[in-house]
Amino acid sequence: MTQARSERNIKLVLEYDGLNYFGFQRQPRHKTVQSELEAALSKLFNSTVKIAAASGRTDSGTSAAGQVVNFRVSSALACERIQKGLNALLPQDIAVMSVRNVKTDFHARYSARSKTYEYQVLNRSERSPLKSRHFYHVNQRLDLPEMKRAAKHLTGRHDFKSFCAADPAKPNREDTVRTVKRIEIIRRGDVVLFRIEADGFLYKMVRNIVGTLIDAGLGRTRAADTARILAARDRRQAGKTVPAAGLVLKSVKY
Amino acid sequence: MTQARSERNIKLVLEYDGLNYFGFQRQPRHKTVQSELEAALSKLFNSTVKIAAASGRTDSGTSAAGQVVNFRVSSALACERIQKGLNALLPQDIAVMSVRNVKTDFHARYSARSKTYEYQVLNRSERSPLKSRHFYHVNQRLDLPEMKRAAKHLTGRHDFKSFCAADPAKPNREDTVRTVKRIEIIRRGDVVLFRIEADGFLYKMVRNIVGTLIDAGLGRTRAADTARILAARDRRQAGKTVPAAGLVLKSVKY
Repeated sequence: MTQARSERNIKLVLEYDGLNYFGFQRQPRHKTVQSELEAALSKLFNSTVKIAAASGRTDSGTSAAGQVVNFRVSSALACERIQKGLNALLPQDIAVMSVRNVKTDFHARYSARSKTYEYQVLNRSERSPLKSRHFYHVNQRLDLPEMKRAAKHLTGRHDFKSFCAADPAKPNREDTVRTVKRIEIIRRGDVVLFRIEADGFLYKMVRNIVGTLIDAGLGRTRAADTARILAARDRRQAGKTVPAAGLVLKSVKY
Repeated sequence: MTQARSERNIKLVLEYDGLNYFGFQRQPRHKTVQSELEAALSKLFNSTVKIAAASGRTDSGTSAAGQVVNFRVSSALACERIQKGLNALLPQDIAVMSVRNVKTDFHARYSARSKTYEYQVLNRSERSPLKSRHFYHVNQRLDLPEMKRAAKHLTGRHDFKSFCAADPAKPNREDTVRTVKRIEIIRRGDVVLFRIEADGFLYKMVRNIVGTLIDAGLGRTRAADTARILAARDRRQAGKTVPAAGLVLKSVKY
């Protein structure tokens, strides 16, 4: 059998509101972003389409402004038409931001060089009716310089076992060494934004890092304790897992 | 009869998500911000409390980050306790940001020197699942320099009759002269923010000004047409009324 001559490899960039979904990855009996997207693609191309995603296993409730997926299809439909077609078929809480033809060997997950996540904290005493949906509310003032000092211990190539939750889908030992390229912590009015870029992330790693930095920002730990927590390679040493609602997959570099 | 010796005049600053309410002002058979607030106040003080608001007549769907109200009460309850009590009694989509004792003659509406509104436009080709609730989506690129030139014609003291919708609550002639102190138009990524400060606003005036500026930003009119529209004193000359969802009462100056 010969392969269809015109098989294309197509890359999509997606934005979605993850609070309405049971994570990204397809699951039986649950509404997920992947299942919505594959349903729209299969309808558009009138054949079964399966995708690969940069961050296929993001937690339930995590949103994205720049999730990347790819898929193979034999259609000759122009990229612009694919985008318009998908956005018409997808629910309002998922949008295709761009569609591009890519080389055959491009793989949304394995070709990724780094991913950047952002975590949004509302940092003021009272709740905010206008900043509630994608924010985690911390009502005591966060000490930014202390959090930045704590974050310095985490940048670079380290074993992040202390920041890795037990993954029900991967019960076996996993390599827990990752390279965190940068951690930026920015205050904008009453919002504190954590931006973390790494070559890869362990299960719930961003949320565990942010929880640990918040401990330093509230004076529960000292910045220097972060080095000890990292060295312990023990999840119980790190801070709590902050809620998924504040987390957004911002971009993927290739 | 003597007045209660301890009667206080109290000023509150409120934030609320207006999309859940039928405007601010109390109305029979409709859920409004004022009715929720007065119910909470009356419960907290165990007596009927009536408020005055800086912008009592904001449209249905308009939000606020800095609405100001005042009310009189004989209680000795500390401001901090009033704030905590109200925030416990109010629904999650209304929050009291501050509580302060003010002079007897302070009136949230009549003492106001100026009000600032912000209007948020999402300006990109595709919809945004993460920026949808409080944004108006304009999918063609807005020309900011042209809109800024158009806005210049509107700053200062003018008769804004062209930008005033017929107000069902005020069918009679009304003085339509107002002073617009500034119009700022800012691009932040894919968001265009309009910030308008004036000594007062006519019915739907912000939304009509933004609609008119967007016409200039899309090339439907020229910046110079704004002077003609203003001079016409005719609502039919100005642009369309943009949706209330993008509008936020940001602050009130006294």
